[in-house]
Amino acid sequence: MCRWLGYFGSPILPKELISDPERSLIEQSRRAGPHMSATNGDGFGLGWYGPRDRPTLFRSATPAWGDENLRELTAAIESPLFLAHVRAATGTPVQQTNCHPFRYGRWLFVHNGYIADYQRLRRDLLYAVHPGLFTNIKGSTDSELMFHLALTFGLEDDPIGGLERMAGHVEALGAARGVAEPLQMTIGLSDGERLYAVRYASGPVVNTLYVSEDIEALRRLYPAEERLAHFGDEARVVVSEPLIALPDLWHEVPSSSALVVQKGPDEERPFRPRPAE
Amino acid sequence: MCRWLGYFGSPILPKELISDPERSLIEQSRRAGPHMSATNGDGFGLGWYGPRDRPTLFRSATPAWGDENLRELTAAIESPLFLAHVRAATGTPVQQTNCHPFRYGRWLFVHNGYIADYQRLRRDLLYAVHPGLFTNIKGSTDSELMFHLALTFGLEDDPIGGLERMAGHVEALGAARGVAEPLQMTIGLSDGERLYAVRYASGPVVNTLYVSEDIEALRRLYPAEERLAHFGDEARVVVSEPLIALPDLWHEVPSSSALVVQKGPDEERPFRPRPAE
Amino acid sequence: MCRWLGYFGSPILPKELISDPERSLIEQSRRAGPHMSATNGDGFGLGWYGPRDRPTLFRSATPAWGDENLRELTAAIESPLFLAHVRAATGTPVQQTNCHPFRYGRWLFVHNGYIADYQRLRRDLLYAVHPGLFTNIKGSTDSELMFHLALTFGLEDDPIGGLERMAGHVEALGAARGVAEPLQMTIGLSDGERLYAVRYASGPVVNTLYVSEDIEALRRLYPAEERLAHFGDEARVVVSEPLIALPDLWHEVPSSSALVVQKGPDEERPFRPRPAE
Amino acid sequence: MCRWLGYFGSPILPKELISDPERSLIEQSRRAGPHMSATNGDGFGLGWYGPRDRPTLFRSATPAWGDENLRELTAAIESPLFLAHVRAATGTPVQQTNCHPFRYGRWLFVHNGYIADYQRLRRDLLYAVHPGLFTNIKGSTDSELMFHLALTFGLEDDPIGGLERMAGHVEALGAARGVAEPLQMTIGLSDGERLYAVRYASGPVVNTLYVSEDIEALRRLYPAEERLAHFGDEARVVVSEPLIALPDLWHEVPSSSALVVQKGPDEERPFRPRPAE
Repeated sequence: MCRWLGYFGSPILPKELISDPERSLIEQSRRAGPHMSATNGDGFGLGWYGPRDRPTLFRSATPAWGDENLRELTAAIESPLFLAHVRAATGTPVQQTNCHPFRYGRWLFVHNGYIADYQRLRRDLLYAVHPGLFTNIKGSTDSELMFHLALTFGLEDDPIGGLERMAGHVEALGAARGVAEPLQMTIGLSDGERLYAVRYASGPVVNTLYVSEDIEALRRLYPAEERLAHFGDEARVVVSEPLIALPDLWHEVPSSSALVVQKGPDEERPFRPRPAE
Repeated sequence: MCRWLGYFGSPILPKELISDPERSLIEQSRRAGPHMSATNGDGFGLGWYGPRDRPTLFRSATPAWGDENLRELTAAIESPLFLAHVRAATGTPVQQTNCHPFRYGRWLFVHNGYIADYQRLRRDLLYAVHPGLFTNIKGSTDSELMFHLALTFGLEDDPIGGLERMAGHVEALGAARGVAEPLQMTIGLSDGERLYAVRYASGPVVNTLYVSEDIEALRRLYPAEERLAHFGDEARVVVSEPLIALPDLWHEVPSSSALVVQKGPDEERPFRPRPAE
Repeated sequence: MCRWLGYFGSPILPKELISDPERSLIEQSRRAGPHMSATNGDGFGLGWYGPRDRPTLFRSATPAWGDENLRELTAAIESPLFLAHVRAATGTPVQQTNCHPFRYGRWLFVHNGYIADYQRLRRDLLYAVHPGLFTNIKGSTDSELMFHLALTFGLEDDPIGGLERMAGHVEALGAARGVAEPLQMTIGLSDGERLYAVRYASGPVVNTLYVSEDIEALRRLYPAEERLAHFGDEARVVVSEPLIALPDLWHEVPSSSALVVQKGPDEERPFRPRPAE
Repeated sequence: MCRWLGYFGSPILPKELISDPERSLIEQSRRAGPHMSATNGDGFGLGWYGPRDRPTLFRSATPAWGDENLRELTAAIESPLFLAHVRAATGTPVQQTNCHPFRYGRWLFVHNGYIADYQRLRRDLLYAVHPGLFTNIKGSTDSELMFHLALTFGLEDDPIGGLERMAGHVEALGAARGVAEPLQMTIGLSDGERLYAVRYASGPVVNTLYVSEDIEALRRLYPAEERLAHFGDEARVVVSEPLIALPDLWHEVPSSSALVVQKGPDEERPFRPRPAE
């Protein structure tokens, strides 16, 4: 099981979320929680938006907790929008090209979950990717493949729709091959303007996903909490597991739903896999 | 351009060929020769046969010259048959899964060369691999794909024939897509019983390939040469570039030919790409 | 906290202890047990004795659980005597030169524990190492330094005595600098003939250390247990934490004692730090 | 032999000097020039100044030419002052802690050269480092040790003087131990305000060092050269070997001299090793 984090708001140093909090992403990657079977030591990645026209990636196949460069970098660059990920490999090699986020043009993509029976379905899924996108696949994970399927099915014009058609396609293929519950996923996605988050699984057990509550409300509740003063009014953090122990700070994203974090009010809508036709 | 070496004979420490000679494989990987444009610092691999039923691999995405583990290992294990490779990446990522040798069952495969316009041909080539072999492809190189195409086309029963059909398939696809000279290759292959070596290119320029001469004859010529006394009578070394400066030690393998090194007399035969039908 | 394992007996594949058992060293490195605060993902090492005159090392700064080369190697080489280690860094860099075992001539050394306030004591400890041994120190850990202090104090002629004088020296310096409990250690040591194991700490809390019981007796108790049939009569395993859940298989080595595993009866004796004079 | 580059001027993307030019630092690290015996594939580092109170480091023990993160980073961050280095190891391990630049507080340090007979002199040199600086030494190179000796001898208050006393100390120790020509060095140093460069050797052969000429003058000579238009009027590049083939762009720094690049006129002065008293 991987872990990830997305930030949207006024520019901050990524280390404030990635390494500073008591239960930061890096600490999570190292220490097993009560319901964790293993650690996330099989690589990490950070993708951030800045002045450039496309996001920048820093990824490595080493554990996040011992990486000096990650420590340096997250204390040196500021960004208003980034995605970070720590990996626990589930069958595919521990290598940089298998580290999230994956990138296409302005888009970044992270995933926690799996395609069940992936090795058996992989060849057909790979062949469903648009030939023009095929060469952008550098690694061998199910996650990168899901991203390129969603791109094939229109993610750039309709992000949630593209993901729904990807999920529909994977489930249809799984059904045809007798895979009971083909999909388990929380997904983080961005084009540099919005942060999209999806929580879905084919079966009843769905990986967790949380979004930070309205900062304004929290400030009234916790006037002494310095961390909250620091972030801007519209700042949102989406995480696969809560980072710090502030009660009421985290709101669970419902199963089978998609969240769009953006300037102005966020949107939450159902996530419904459907055929790619 | 990569470099590789194959050894067949009585058991020796791989370091005798990989790191000891004046122009060992490791030295070659580090220092540029007169016709080299760059070094082979993008990973290495050693595959060797021993008492086990399948060969063992040691591969890494770091330069061979600085690798302590390679130095240790090649001085500790003895083998009668091994293949070693140093890589210069030509467009695909520097990662362990892209390091040669590649393995399937008892088979080991190394390659020096390329498929021209690989990124454009890759998707179709990948889809031509037998579905049952598909999951054994872990990396993204043209070399690993060539190996699995040859396996698809019968390499296990007819090694040279499988490689000829692979070459024919690549050239046919290249021709259909307007790639002028699709294939450049020297290949080393083994099943633990024999060492196969092939030299071929679609065009007139063909990567070099050498095999060591008959040891007996050389011993008469160079009675003082201690290195030669050490190797058994049937020892053969196949290399992409001569290792040491002994005149008459190396015999150039002709273009478009295949060599079979085995117990008893070696075989040399034409290599003729042909359709896989 | 690191973890280590030593094996003495008839030749086996290291994987039988390192990766096969339910609670193998690799599984231990990945999954946190009830009293573990973090995983051992900061590198690993294997040192083994074979036909050569000195032991061979395979060490890497990556997590043991994802290392293909370790998996390959431990299934390919057989050894009658080896030491394996998984590291959890405690302040010094994650790098190969900081991975155990450390080697000097025929000697191998692994350690679980620490020198308290190491950064403050390091300079003086380093200067106490014999100048002729100084250049053999390649990394920056307290463990490697402890080994070279023990060598300085006569380890080669008197292994346990050398370790006792090392411990005495560290404690004397600690006392002079106001470090309350300077030493925490279990140590594995070998010269290729014997396997030495020491358990000691300056204070009341001492890291665990276990040795496998007499195989003969166990065979009578557990006739159905296939694993036990496989090992020779004199086989012994020394571990920082039990590998499998067989009751009565593991005997706790007492605090402040040293164990010598050898042909014929093993020895257990007190471990008493003393001045190096 | 290592290679390094320092930049001082208006903020630029480091990639403009590190990867873009025909003879960029990365190209130099990969391809052997006419007088090069080996490549610089044993790690690299970039240290840059930005809004933070201390410089940021990005260092890795892998070859610069294949590093995706370096490519990403040098295209994403802008800096008015940075030092970059590619390493060819000369006896000390290939590991991140041995990669330049080295840092202390606001100071960055890079070096091309060596201390002759370093392994024999190392212990005494190490012990000459001020105890309070000792714990900042993380690796095992002569270069990092030279930096900490210079810090010990007053580099922070008198940068060139500190380096002169370091050189004097090394030469005095070398003389006492019968080392004929103990020192070979070009050094790049910065505190974020100025860029210092020194060229010196104990013997007659001195590693090369160049500084870019006055941009203004060059613009008049090469009005069509777009690269020159881009850099600010005070931009200076100091390099161990010229980056591009523009005649008259590079001025050789004389042997035994020190250069101070700063706002306003640069300074050039003799470099004279002297006792540290």
